[in-house]
Amino acid sequence: MEMLVLKLEKDIDMPLYEQIYEKIRVDITDGKLPVGMKLPSKRKLGEFLDVSQTTIELAYGQLIAEGFISSIPRKGFYVQAIEELAYVRPIKNTKMATIEEQDSIDFDFSPGHIDTDSFPFTQWRKYAKEVIDESSKNLLLLGDPHGDIELRQEIARYLYHSRGVDCTPEQIIVGSGTEQLMPLVIRILGTGATYAIEDPGYPLTHHVFFHNNREAIPIHVDDEGIDVQSLQQSDATIAYVTPSHQFPTGTVLSAARRTALLNWASSQEEHFIIEDDYDSEFRYAGRPIPSLQGMDKGDSVIYLSTFSKSLMPSLRIAYMVLPNVLLERYKDAFIHYASTVPRLDQHILARFMADGHFSRHLNKMRKIYKRKLQTLTETLIPYAPHVSFSGDEAGMHIIVTVHTGESEQMLTTAAEKVGIRLYGLNSYRTTPILGEPSFLIGFGGLSVHSITDAINNLMRAWGIRKT
Amino acid sequence: MEMLVLKLEKDIDMPLYEQIYEKIRVDITDGKLPVGMKLPSKRKLGEFLDVSQTTIELAYGQLIAEGFISSIPRKGFYVQAIEELAYVRPIKNTKMATIEEQDSIDFDFSPGHIDTDSFPFTQWRKYAKEVIDESSKNLLLLGDPHGDIELRQEIARYLYHSRGVDCTPEQIIVGSGTEQLMPLVIRILGTGATYAIEDPGYPLTHHVFFHNNREAIPIHVDDEGIDVQSLQQSDATIAYVTPSHQFPTGTVLSAARRTALLNWASSQEEHFIIEDDYDSEFRYAGRPIPSLQGMDKGDSVIYLSTFSKSLMPSLRIAYMVLPNVLLERYKDAFIHYASTVPRLDQHILARFMADGHFSRHLNKMRKIYKRKLQTLTETLIPYAPHVSFSGDEAGMHIIVTVHTGESEQMLTTAAEKVGIRLYGLNSYRTTPILGEPSFLIGFGGLSVHSITDAINNLMRAWGIRKT
Repeated sequence: MEMLVLKLEKDIDMPLYEQIYEKIRVDITDGKLPVGMKLPSKRKLGEFLDVSQTTIELAYGQLIAEGFISSIPRKGFYVQAIEELAYVRPIKNTKMATIEEQDSIDFDFSPGHIDTDSFPFTQWRKYAKEVIDESSKNLLLLGDPHGDIELRQEIARYLYHSRGVDCTPEQIIVGSGTEQLMPLVIRILGTGATYAIEDPGYPLTHHVFFHNNREAIPIHVDDEGIDVQSLQQSDATIAYVTPSHQFPTGTVLSAARRTALLNWASSQEEHFIIEDDYDSEFRYAGRPIPSLQGMDKGDSVIYLSTFSKSLMPSLRIAYMVLPNVLLERYKDAFIHYASTVPRLDQHILARFMADGHFSRHLNKMRKIYKRKLQTLTETLIPYAPHVSFSGDEAGMHIIVTVHTGESEQMLTTAAEKVGIRLYGLNSYRTTPILGEPSFLIGFGGLSVHSITDAINNLMRAWGIRKT
Repeated sequence: MEMLVLKLEKDIDMPLYEQIYEKIRVDITDGKLPVGMKLPSKRKLGEFLDVSQTTIELAYGQLIAEGFISSIPRKGFYVQAIEELAYVRPIKNTKMATIEEQDSIDFDFSPGHIDTDSFPFTQWRKYAKEVIDESSKNLLLLGDPHGDIELRQEIARYLYHSRGVDCTPEQIIVGSGTEQLMPLVIRILGTGATYAIEDPGYPLTHHVFFHNNREAIPIHVDDEGIDVQSLQQSDATIAYVTPSHQFPTGTVLSAARRTALLNWASSQEEHFIIEDDYDSEFRYAGRPIPSLQGMDKGDSVIYLSTFSKSLMPSLRIAYMVLPNVLLERYKDAFIHYASTVPRLDQHILARFMADGHFSRHLNKMRKIYKRKLQTLTETLIPYAPHVSFSGDEAGMHIIVTVHTGESEQMLTTAAEKVGIRLYGLNSYRTTPILGEPSFLIGFGGLSVHSITDAINNLMRAWGIRKT
């Protein structure tokens, strides 16, 4: 019979039971204690090692829990069969990442950047402090899978007053972003649905369709928005559109096309419009463009929006308004799903909205962005006719077209050399088109002063002079 | 020529330009102003209505933006063709939801509930206050799509010390929960993958596979965990397992099966193990069970865990550790995706962990849950042999089996009548089995006092007396 050799060290940090566990475990994985061998009883081993029976019990208990030995009632403890792969405890230290160095970009014209200087930190902190409180214990638990009702009520109220969206709080689903909500919509629309997307359009949406194994038919966008006639002639049953401010061209869908689009959806079975109203809050000329959802009489519009532009991209709170027919399907399909949005954040936002801070923040930001936009266009005007711009009625970017005969690639490289990052319109198209190059010029994240500098530097880099 | 009749009201709240816009718009949609009709020039209309030209410009601008009229340079403004569907502004008030009334449940044995009384609100508030600060402006913008490095470093450090998980912060992907991370894993594993799931198992995972159009093969779980031999004989290439504390049976995967499982995955191409370590923090007897990921030598384990049990379910922060081979695929596939987790929350958690509060919280909670568990088992013991229990070494629930000959349905109904909600083990199986009924008895969300009361009430309702 094999010997169980154990030497305990009383002066090291490891508890005795763990030393015993460890030595037996290693002996089993090394094959020193063969399969089927009977271990000494707890009493015997305790006496032999001069430790309490409780210590042995803990060690054997751990070995049993991990399956190295088994206990057969009224018989004893036996070594179990394990396969060859020994358990190796990692000995390396955790490798730490080095944070990547920033590249030498002075001005980034990204259309996704927002103004961070004017965020109402004080109010947000106040509501965060209020919400993270002993009295909010129940907010630690999971809430409504569609989003907490307090937030959905505020969103419904806001949508009704600001966007003419007609819905109950129950129709609203709160989620972590367009890319999280879209797959859920795609699932409830079923495998029979065929999607139409705007071309040029929002690349993330294209990827979402691709990742969910759905074909998406690109439909041309002109200066009235998506070409509804082409849509009608296509096999699409669902149209994904940005009617208030087409991304990226900045076009507003014309009234004629709006009604044509709504008629297309409402007159056919299982036809729907997904209205992505991503930055509708920021319109600088006249009244906001009313939502398609508000015009709809046929329960045909899925309305989608986000707080990314209006508050902060990193908040990760978006929402959609489902027509009643789809709401039922949604409830059936996602009965086991929890909301992906942290509840404390939902309640901070709900209180922030309820007290009117959201409307005030929007009014303030609208003025700030309008001033930035004016600076941008006023800086560009003297460079005409070499450059022209469009899409300057809303949002946080405009389209600048260059008429110097140079290619998009040449212009982008020239800009990068002077530390300016540009976003070519062609990268938002399914197939690039030849012709005069256009760029998305995002101004949200740049200060008024930087905008002037960046544009003047850019024109110098491109060899364009004021006329 | 048709007349344009406008009557402005100077004493109402609506701006003049909006009144003009509104009247013209309604006249167009009502057909009073026919398609092609030329509108008066801005100057003429301004003089006629005795308002400034700027006011008319704003009104016409809005009508142009919405496509009701068009402007032809050097000619004038013309009514555009729109289809019949008139734009109707919603007139109903926003309907408010009534918050659903609570049903009359006094004690809920849900396995998903946690102890909310001991949450460290003070510390969490302190870090929230620190993070929501002017100096954190850049945290408003989108961060690393895989999660901010500060948090991933803390998670890597924690996993290494507490779970023996051997990874770099770069291998960690932070997400909003298992149900958000799993579809991403499913996509990078491709359509060739076939999944094995534990039976009984976690219902949400089954739904995730179903929603992503992946077949999942149920594999029987016995008192050593998942039956690896059945797995080997199946066509599965991916095994989804809960080895440290099988959900819902509470079994620990035996050492022999651990090595067999790792050998199964590492010896075959494109075979992987998804190790869901959902509540491994709470083990009450001996050392924690080491993770499969730490034992693995073959880059075969996808490690998945969450802060839902250890901090709060509503925080919605989970994470996974990808083997390097899958990390590359992940980066390629999800290049356009942003993280779904709010950045402020990521940084609150990272600071909370860095200062040691997370470890302290876990130690405290382990003691609290252990005491609750002891109360639960001590209350149950006198009712033997009519009831027995298992799975009492870890986690926040145990399995109670009833030996009175009554059915699961009868027992559940009897419990509900006295205000006790129960979760039958059969509902976690792919096909219910006959035989003595078992229940998941979650104790995390109940106070020590409630546990005693609830169990005694339950036994009374079931007609079981102490022996």
